[in-house]
Amino acid sequence: MDIETLSPSDIERRSMEIIESEMGDTSRLSETEKLVVKRVIHATADFDYLDNMRFSENAADIGLEALKNGAVIVTDTNMALSGISKPALKTLGCEAVCFMADEDVAAQAKASCMTRAAVSMDKAARLFGGKNVIFAVGNAPTALIRIHELIGEGKLSPSLIIGVPVGFVNVVQSKELIMSGSTPYIVAAGRKGGSTVAAAVCNALLYQLYERK
Amino acid sequence: MDIETLSPSDIERRSMEIIESEMGDTSRLSETEKLVVKRVIHATADFDYLDNMRFSENAADIGLEALKNGAVIVTDTNMALSGISKPALKTLGCEAVCFMADEDVAAQAKASCMTRAAVSMDKAARLFGGKNVIFAVGNAPTALIRIHELIGEGKLSPSLIIGVPVGFVNVVQSKELIMSGSTPYIVAAGRKGGSTVAAAVCNALLYQLYERK
Repeated sequence: MDIETLSPSDIERRSMEIIESEMGDTSRLSETEKLVVKRVIHATADFDYLDNMRFSENAADIGLEALKNGAVIVTDTNMALSGISKPALKTLGCEAVCFMADEDVAAQAKASCMTRAAVSMDKAARLFGGKNVIFAVGNAPTALIRIHELIGEGKLSPSLIIGVPVGFVNVVQSKELIMSGSTPYIVAAGRKGGSTVAAAVCNALLYQLYERK
Repeated sequence: MDIETLSPSDIERRSMEIIESEMGDTSRLSETEKLVVKRVIHATADFDYLDNMRFSENAADIGLEALKNGAVIVTDTNMALSGISKPALKTLGCEAVCFMADEDVAAQAKASCMTRAAVSMDKAARLFGGKNVIFAVGNAPTALIRIHELIGEGKLSPSLIIGVPVGFVNVVQSKELIMSGSTPYIVAAGRKGGSTVAAAVCNALLYQLYERK
């Protein structure tokens, strides 16, 4: 196999063409949902996400609306935060934050025997409880579980939950919890997911609203 | 399915037990290689990596030696950089860097029609050419291709190349290039990989040398 000489934008277009040609039947997906799934496959080269990605009704379009209206994206890892397009956020008047490395979060986690991920969701609820917030959880099921509890307690009403933690313990359950709720969600059902998937879902939405140079 | 109440360290131990029990035959792997593969599966929930992960002779142990001797890890994304354990790096006297967002790299990429990833490898060669350096490439095949060229030009002699870019264009070829060379490598053969995989390989090695609290 020879190496193809292509510009970065051509590489991405060619990649998306390959993904499209190998995806098979995508009739269950809306246009926006399909863009999300394609970008997740682009980030993982894993076509399992074609089946795994679950969207509550109009969730992807609800996400677009939230971003048009300056949403704050809260992640559960600095890695996911690092992967979300900063130029797109800036242009749209959105921001992305992660509280995992904050000292107050670490201290409260230690004192309360909660995970830092769960405590960082409490911090998000205090700061953005009634605001236009999107959660993008790529790592910690405890973050998803805490979001579900905070919604139940009336302390949070997110515009969208992107629930794509990866792993083997409590991951499937935490995603089922989110899919049982009434908050719009984009979830990677099963064990798979991760910070790259969380960032890819965010970027798929952002890139619909922002033309990259 | 009920949610299990476990501490973070218990969750990780339990996760590794599940991975171990589902991995099947691992007799082709050394002990250190197995730890690398397990951590990659832990980061992706994708057992394809059991077959995909390729190690040149003693590469995992060579990586451990490099880290014991204060290696610099160069990544091709800030996302991978963000996922590598900072406490472990600090304790071992190692550091991790990424030049992708540097202004001089952006300017040179524009001027030379190279990708920023490739140019950032040139910068690494200038700064660390003869030093103990580990490359951890989770995104850009052009980074791997440039590393291969720089080695050929005598401008780089890395201790280890972690070659795990993800994608559909030039990714497989770039990995084959690295596997055809004489520099120790850990490669995820095929299309799969990513920044989380790059970070997981680094952390698998770091955690052998550093006891987490």
